[in-house]
Amino acid sequence: MSSQFDTATQVVPDGPGRFTAHIDDQWSVAGRTNGGYLLAVLGRAAGAVGAPHHDVVAATATYLSPVPPGPVGLVVDVLRRGRSTSVLRVRLQTLDDEPRVEALVTCGRLDDANEPFHDGVERPSLPPLADCPRLPPYFGEFEVPIMRVVAEHLDPATSGWTRGQPDGVGELRAYLMLDDGAGPDPLSLLLAVDALPPASFDLGLGGWVPTLQLSAWVRGVPAAGPLVVRQRARLVQSGLFDETCDVWDSRGHLVATGHQLAGVRLPRG
Amino acid sequence: MSSQFDTATQVVPDGPGRFTAHIDDQWSVAGRTNGGYLLAVLGRAAGAVGAPHHDVVAATATYLSPVPPGPVGLVVDVLRRGRSTSVLRVRLQTLDDEPRVEALVTCGRLDDANEPFHDGVERPSLPPLADCPRLPPYFGEFEVPIMRVVAEHLDPATSGWTRGQPDGVGELRAYLMLDDGAGPDPLSLLLAVDALPPASFDLGLGGWVPTLQLSAWVRGVPAAGPLVVRQRARLVQSGLFDETCDVWDSRGHLVATGHQLAGVRLPRG
Repeated sequence: MSSQFDTATQVVPDGPGRFTAHIDDQWSVAGRTNGGYLLAVLGRAAGAVGAPHHDVVAATATYLSPVPPGPVGLVVDVLRRGRSTSVLRVRLQTLDDEPRVEALVTCGRLDDANEPFHDGVERPSLPPLADCPRLPPYFGEFEVPIMRVVAEHLDPATSGWTRGQPDGVGELRAYLMLDDGAGPDPLSLLLAVDALPPASFDLGLGGWVPTLQLSAWVRGVPAAGPLVVRQRARLVQSGLFDETCDVWDSRGHLVATGHQLAGVRLPRG
Repeated sequence: MSSQFDTATQVVPDGPGRFTAHIDDQWSVAGRTNGGYLLAVLGRAAGAVGAPHHDVVAATATYLSPVPPGPVGLVVDVLRRGRSTSVLRVRLQTLDDEPRVEALVTCGRLDDANEPFHDGVERPSLPPLADCPRLPPYFGEFEVPIMRVVAEHLDPATSGWTRGQPDGVGELRAYLMLDDGAGPDPLSLLLAVDALPPASFDLGLGGWVPTLQLSAWVRGVPAAGPLVVRQRARLVQSGLFDETCDVWDSRGHLVATGHQLAGVRLPRG
């Protein structure tokens, strides 16, 4: 049986380097399709063309305009075929060829047996899952349907913003699982790097945070069990902010990192 | 009078969305053209087409094959024109249309007056410039011509690797200036995020570090004076490593950040 994530990211061949997909309205926030979910759809098309380099290792997307639910087309162009990696350009477009998302994707083969030679990324310590409440599928007046298909259990130490009391640190930490119990796979890490609420919420900056560019590095095959995700704001300035999102698997291995530059509404100063 | 950097990144219009450029052999390391310099050439073409959004705000490049010195062509396609930003795809190719580098570039207008709303990036403290020796234009048997046009003064606390004694931290810190005395401008920050030696050298990992993807966020107009650059290794595993490079101007403002995923040769374990 297919998981919800598998079904929602399915791509159907439609000619050489072409696919169709169906954007599922569940993977959305306040009426906008989630960027990490879209990156996973693009990544899946890239992996299909990149085979035998079927794992996405690096992917950077630029979001041109919102992608409504429903059928879309995907066009994959091979930029390079190497011995160990392939590089692809993927475009997600409407059925009448209006570009919506474009990505540069490097595909390779992930090795699940490898241990790090050097790990310079400090790992967060979260309370047990049972002590981290699950985020509900709404926030104030907004519907957040993605919280029905993705179970996000927020570290209470970073949940002040949910009660109108952001702590000003700019960091969110959570356990993340697919709601239907499907285990994480490499493709789902593209979702994981952009599935938490924006770290700007922890700075008291509400509102929509449109992503300009999102880069994801996938570093390993995740072990079964909940992922641990940390979303950190770096510089917030002039209506833009960058955040880094690190993802660990249940063994404590860093398996993916996302970096994004996004827009944010600042209070008038 | 033009600076060496201006001259080396010059793009000459050659039809709608098309340019020629001349890749200068000085901006190279051991016979390979530097990726940050190439990103600046692509960024300059993007800004010319993106005008009035002429500043590169975000740029991600994928390096398909080495770019030898000499004439090249650039093709810029407009993916989106918005009110405050334009998104462009730029391809650098040989004169017979062989693609060598492709980038997604978001252009806008940088504001040099803005102060950060939140700055979560810890700033390094370097000894005075006079106490930081300049890196020479060679390393062992390798020529590093870029060190003639870019003056990099390495913090001695991070220079053990130059004497065969890497300290294992995975961090390099340096002052960076253009050798001819030209001040830093936003475009030159694309060079700055990939101009230091790789942080892997500080981990005892020598050898060539081919970049798969490099993302640069440009956050402000740099003040006159030396830049401070910190290159940090994150995860080194399975022949790949990611590093984050932060760049501050002489006022201490974070003006650019680069994130890259690159190949690295690991010792046989």
